Amino acid sequence: GKGGEGEIGIAVKVPLVRMKIGEVGEATSVVVLPVCKAEEGVKGVEEAPGECKTEGEFGVVVAEKAWRRWVVFPGWDPVMGLGPGGVVVAFADARVLPWKVNRWYKEEAILVVADRSKKDVVVDDGFYLVSSKENGGDLKVERGSVLKKLGVKDGLGTVVLVVRPPREDTEEMEKTLS
Amino acid sequence: GKGGEGEIGIAVKVPLVRMKIGEVGEATSVVVLPVCKAEEGVKGVEEAPGECKTEGEFGVVVAEKAWRRWVVFPGWDPVMGLGPGGVVVAFADARVLPWKVNRWYKEEAILVVADRSKKDVVVDDGFYLVSSKENGGDLKVERGSVLKKLGVKDGLGTVVLVVRPPREDTEEMEKTLS
Repeated sequence: GKGGEGEIGIAVKVPLVRMKIGEVGEATSVVVLPVCKAEEGVKGVEEAPGECKTEGEFGVVVAEKAWRRWVVFPGWDPVMGLGPGGVVVAFADARVLPWKVNRWYKEEAILVVADRSKKDVVVDDGFYLVSSKENGGDLKVERGSVLKKLGVKDGLGTVVLVVRPPREDTEEMEKTLS
Repeated sequence: GKGGEGEIGIAVKVPLVRMKIGEVGEATSVVVLPVCKAEEGVKGVEEAPGECKTEGEFGVVVAEKAWRRWVVFPGWDPVMGLGPGGVVVAFADARVLPWKVNRWYKEEAILVVADRSKKDVVVDDGFYLVSSKENGGDLKVERGSVLKKLGVKDGLGTVVLVVRPPREDTEEMEKTLS
């Protein structure tokens, strides 16, 4: 380089790469979803952008409205199948879940992925994102059967996935709750 | 499920997965950057959010301001090293580049990744994102040496990477231009 001495004078090479098929940026392999924090409550869930289209060959995500907080997921079936109703709620721990079988629930943050296009409480065995009246509107996850008994007809959305954070051990990688 | 007959009555199982180390969502392996379209010109480049922090174990991206258009890149060195100045400009074809050696330049869309924190034209062999006065402010990429000859002291940012779209063939996967 002829830019002079020192750090600023170091010759710069601009790398040109070709994105690989199946690599992260490809539209079919990852899903980008808007995130709201549990503390933002019903307002956060309802205000998060709906439709997020994918544009062009690079899989650029174009949301129907501007938003600050996003997460990138691998192309897991439940999130790939989400339409414009997809939203992610970040909880500090898993005590908001209606099942409590292991001690990790108090120790790990979780992300709850919900479909806002399916608000009606119709499935007994389904799980719904709701705001709990007894806790000043705090968000939680509840079973359809429980909501029906309480006479609750609709929630904020149907839960399609719960995500735990990455860990070194590879056991219990995937688990289906019912 | 006890939800009745038909599609709506099908029992729903909520999958619970653990994100793998090194998988897409992990903060260290992907980079999410704000995108503006070349047609948006200088305004788009300047208005795109600056700092995009990564929050918590899931690598949730939190931008300093809301934005509609985003892209997800694998953890390529040049983009991993970007600070708050990182921005991506989407061009319909590669004719905006100052080198024209192959015919693909007219046929393929490109993404230009620039660092807005390095606006000063200091490196002869460097490439800079600039708005071209002769074309009504249209964005293009120019060599430092050329800009210096023209007396241009600063651009919109230093180009750190040019990305071509995915293709089936794996040749020319990576190339460094100087």
